[in-house]
This record gives sequence, C-alpha cells and structure tokens, in this order.
Amino acid sequence: MNTLTNRRIVLAARPQGAPQSSDFSMISEPIPDLGEGEIISRTIYLSLDPYMRGRMNEGKSYAAPVEIGETMCGGTVSQVLKSNNPEFAKDDYILTYDGWQEYAVSDGKGARKLDPTQAPISTAVGVLGMPGMTAYMGLLEIGQPQSGETVVVAAATGAVGSNVGQIARLKGCRVVGIAGSREKCEFALNELGFDACINYKDAGFRDSLKTACPEGIDVYFENVGGMVFEAIIPLLNFQSRIPVCGLIAHYNDTELPSGPNVLPKLMRMVLTQRVTIQGFIVSDFSNKQGAFLRDMSKWIADGKIKYKEDIVEGLDNAVGAFQGLLEGNNFGKLLIQVSEDATR
Amino acid sequence: MNTLTNRRIVLAARPQGAPQSSDFSMISEPIPDLGEGEIISRTIYLSLDPYMRGRMNEGKSYAAPVEIGETMCGGTVSQVLKSNNPEFAKDDYILTYDGWQEYAVSDGKGARKLDPTQAPISTAVGVLGMPGMTAYMGLLEIGQPQSGETVVVAAATGAVGSNVGQIARLKGCRVVGIAGSREKCEFALNELGFDACINYKDAGFRDSLKTACPEGIDVYFENVGGMVFEAIIPLLNFQSRIPVCGLIAHYNDTELPSGPNVLPKLMRMVLTQRVTIQGFIVSDFSNKQGAFLRDMSKWIADGKIKYKEDIVEGLDNAVGAFQGLLEGNNFGKLLIQVSEDATR
Repeated sequence: MNTLTNRRIVLAARPQGAPQSSDFSMISEPIPDLGEGEIISRTIYLSLDPYMRGRMNEGKSYAAPVEIGETMCGGTVSQVLKSNNPEFAKDDYILTYDGWQEYAVSDGKGARKLDPTQAPISTAVGVLGMPGMTAYMGLLEIGQPQSGETVVVAAATGAVGSNVGQIARLKGCRVVGIAGSREKCEFALNELGFDACINYKDAGFRDSLKTACPEGIDVYFENVGGMVFEAIIPLLNFQSRIPVCGLIAHYNDTELPSGPNVLPKLMRMVLTQRVTIQGFIVSDFSNKQGAFLRDMSKWIADGKIKYKEDIVEGLDNAVGAFQGLLEGNNFGKLLIQVSEDATR
Repeated sequence: MNTLTNRRIVLAARPQGAPQSSDFSMISEPIPDLGEGEIISRTIYLSLDPYMRGRMNEGKSYAAPVEIGETMCGGTVSQVLKSNNPEFAKDDYILTYDGWQEYAVSDGKGARKLDPTQAPISTAVGVLGMPGMTAYMGLLEIGQPQSGETVVVAAATGAVGSNVGQIARLKGCRVVGIAGSREKCEFALNELGFDACINYKDAGFRDSLKTACPEGIDVYFENVGGMVFEAIIPLLNFQSRIPVCGLIAHYNDTELPSGPNVLPKLMRMVLTQRVTIQGFIVSDFSNKQGAFLRDMSKWIADGKIKYKEDIVEGLDNAVGAFQGLLEGNNFGKLLIQVSEDATR
C-alpha cells in the first residue's frame, strides 16, 4: 500500500523560441504500486542542463524528443524509498535518470549506487557526472591540449566550462574563459585559476579576447556558439581543435540569426589553418568513464579542481530556473533540490 | 655559354577579386650561366591549380605569398637541358616546382626524376601528383569512407574531385558528384563511374542533390564552398566527415557573401550529428606518399582510375586558363603545355 503522491513536470507544448511557463505543466498523481523487481526512488537533486532544450523540440537532436505529455527528462540523484529489486536496498543513494519529478518507480536499470562518504552526492550530476565528463572527454580526447597552448572556453563558470578550464590548466595550458558578468569572470580568475576571463557583454569584447590570446587559440571548447564563436574564428591557430558539445546561444533560435554570412570565414580558417571541428556527446566516450572518475576524483580530493553549485529549492522552481539557465543566469552547476539531502 | 631566352610570368599586382590580366606580366630575359651543382630545365607542362589564387594574396594562406615581381609559383614537368649536378643527366624528365616560366635554373633540390615508360609524364602533376594525392589522402585519411556509405564531391570532373569519386567507388561507396555543366555530369557518370552527378547551376539543384542522396551524406569532400556547401549541410549524416582541401567558390571574394548567416546551421549539424570537419593540405600526409603512388599507379594500370586532362597550349595562355579555372571553365586537370612533350 502506498499513499505517496508524486508531482511531475511534463512537456505541455513545444516551445517556439524561449520556453514559456505554459510549455510545461505540473501533474500530481498517486504513485503506482511496486511491481516485481522495481524500486521507488525519491528525487533529491534534479540536474538542469542546456541539452534539455533540444529534447523539447520535435525531431531528433542528440536523441529522441520528449513527447508532449511526457515527464521532462533529466539526470537525478535520488534515494531508494522502497525496493523489490535485490540490487538496491532501502536508503541507497543512486544516480539515475528519473526526470523532473519528486518520485519515480523504475526497474533500476541504468541506476548507479553512490557512496556519500566518497563525494557529496550532488556531484554525481555535476563535476563527477555528465557535465564534468563532457568537459574531460571533449577537452582531452578531441581538444588534445598541449602544455603551453592556449585554450579558450565560454560559459566559463558553468558546469562544463569550469571543468574544461581547470583541466586545461592542469595540462599546462594558458586558459582564457568567457563569461557573462564581472562576478563570473572574477570567480574564474580567482577561484578556478584561469589566466584571463572576458565578459562577452562588454563593448570591447573582441579586442579584449584578442589581447588575452596573444599567441592565438589552439583549442576552443565550443559550448555556446553565436557572437562568441564569431569572435573566436579569426584567432584560430594552425592545427587548432574545436570540440563542439553545445550551442546554447542558439537553442532558442526560431530563425537564422541576422548579420553577415560568416560561414565562409570559418571555412577559410579551417582550410588555411587546418582546423579540426568535431561534434561529440559524452556518451561517445562512455568506455573511458573509469579514467574520468579516477582522475576527477583525485583532482577534487587534491584541491586541484573546484566546483560551484547553483542550487534552487523545490520542483516548483524548476521551470524558472531552466529558463534562466538558457539566459545564462545561473552561476555554477544548476541543480534543483527536490527533497532534503540528509547527507549534508 | 648560353643564348637561350627565358620567358616567365610574374605577379605584377595583387588581385582585388578575380585576377585580371594586368595582375600579371610577362618578362623575357636571358638565362643565366649555370653554376656548380645547378641544372637548366625546360618546362613541358605547367600545372595550374586553384591554390595559386591564395598565393597571390598578401599574408599567409597555406604558405608564404608570391611577392610582387616574383615568378608565379607552380608545379611543372620539365626536362633537363643541361646539368652540372651529378644527380641529373641531360634529357632527364623531372617533376619540379619551377613555376610559370619556360626555363628554370635551379640546384635541383626537391626535383624528382620521372620514368616516361611508367606513366605519361603529365600525370606527375595530376592523377599521380599533388591533386591525385590530395584526393587520396583527404578521402582515405580524413573521410574514411566505409563500404555502403554515400560520398559527395564537387568539382567532380576536376583534378581532385574526379579522383575522390573514383577512389570512393573502389571503396564500395555510393558516389554523388556535383559539377557545373551537363557534359561534366555525363562524363562523371559514364566515364568515371559515379552513381549520380548533379549540375549545381540547375534550378532544382538542392532537390536533385537530396534525391541523389536518399540515405544522407557520410563524407563530403569539400573543395568548393559557397552554395554547394550550404546545400550539403542539411543532408549530413550522423558522424559524417568533411575533409576540407579547397574553397574555390570563395577565392575571389572581396567581402563576405550576402545571404543569411548559415554558420549556426552548420554548427547545429556538427553538434547534433557529431560531424567532423578537418582542413588539410596534401603535405600533411607526405609520409604516406609511397602508399599513394603504389595504389594509384596500380589502379590506373588496372583501368580502375581514369583521368582527363585539359591541356592548353603555350605559356601565353596561362593567365586566361587560370582565370577560367577559377570560374570552372576547365574540363579535367588543367595543364599548360609550355613546350613539346617528346614522349607522346
């Protein structure tokens, strides 16, 4: 017998441009009884990530879209409330993919147990999870930064960018961040150890970027697109590499941006400088997850990698927080704290 | 004692846009006496290639520009007229880089002897030379075509494109060419064995291209840019590869082309389809020249690779032929026959 009520946020309509509150709706319903082999998990942290905007569109992006009426997808850190599955015990902490809801019934497939004594459980969807691994794989496997090279990353204090920059520093690179406020730039410089960080909202952005990269750019880790990428193009060095994991500046576009057609400008650099541009998602490198977890855990333990979380309380605030994420309003890895974290 | 007069074409001015006749000038002068270790070579074939347009500009492209007053650069098939160099005998045929001139005095460094009984000597600047090797390396090393995949190449009957398509066929791919006339398309289909060839000047080009690639595009060998590349973008498949060796549509651009900014459209495909775009030049793979010469010679001997030459007589016609090359007027590998080929 189960008297719990679940609340979940479903996709109510496909957004045109920026997602509106009316594109989501909250549904309350009783949690179904537990079947054989199933578990009930209580969501503690819901990870909000830019890729979710793509899943809201019709048609294939990385993966199949969220259907209208379906619970919004998302990685979660949860606790097992009840288990009919021998692999999970009551109170286990797990990394799973329950989406935007307070509880979930599942067969536990794909869930991974977390040890709260090893690292704060929230890191499993952040620095030790998908965003951290995206940074690690894209930078090291595609970017292949060499000591002394210049690495540039935007969204510099975000869940991915902050790790790209810090890992590049560990590899001996000059690291230039790009961010959307003075506070973020100061954090990148003073806390994350970047060599420079430029506010893309400043009038002199292009000049400042050029000044911050006196020897050009060897690796540009692309997660934003837009005018930031356009400013990068003329600075690309011979045999520079551009891992592409996101284009947040464009996720809400409903048409091609205005302005001159700079595609030939990019291609000319690709040609004359022998640039490599490569799109990827983290699952392309899932066979190397062990190395990531080993390296990253050690770097965190040694104080070499820092992380900042932007934790918003309550599932009711998920939509607003997600809208803000697409505008760059978050400061650090954005999490919704859906229920209490008893390990803190 | 030497009574020969050399004629050479020098860069007289840096072109603005399409090169004009006035950007070149012809100089006649006596050939200097032969120093120790030097050779005099008589140019038989001068290779005209699109990359030369880049060398006419100020500033670095692939390589240092041709200076004003300097002989236009270019690969040549030449015959040794006189030699003070023990490595070369009178009458040797050589592949060298003497540029747009009738004779050259050099130390012979970098020159390679050709055996006219192995292959027509003109092929040393064509199918068995730089353009053939560009096709081979870009397609196989970067494009990595797999049997059953769709490979698209523009300038389909050109020195590079014709080889890209034929090699891709040998690897079991569906090959779709793009060319600028019905005659060229028919040649690609009937002589080169392409599966389809689309005339980019036809009104229904985009639709025809889509129809010719019912399973999308796995490898697009980029040598033109412009509207052809824009038509390719929406057809790119998951994990498709784009080796970039040229952008002939843009070489005469003086400003960014008009039209919408399609850069974000490309980058979105790079992201969602995990496309790889990589610029290269043939010298990036010079360590693999042996494999190229071995494979290509065999394919030609076996009748598996065909080639077409567009031979224009006389150095006086080099400027006009080069202007035509940039407009796509040539049909096959463009050569200037500067002097008699006694091996034919």
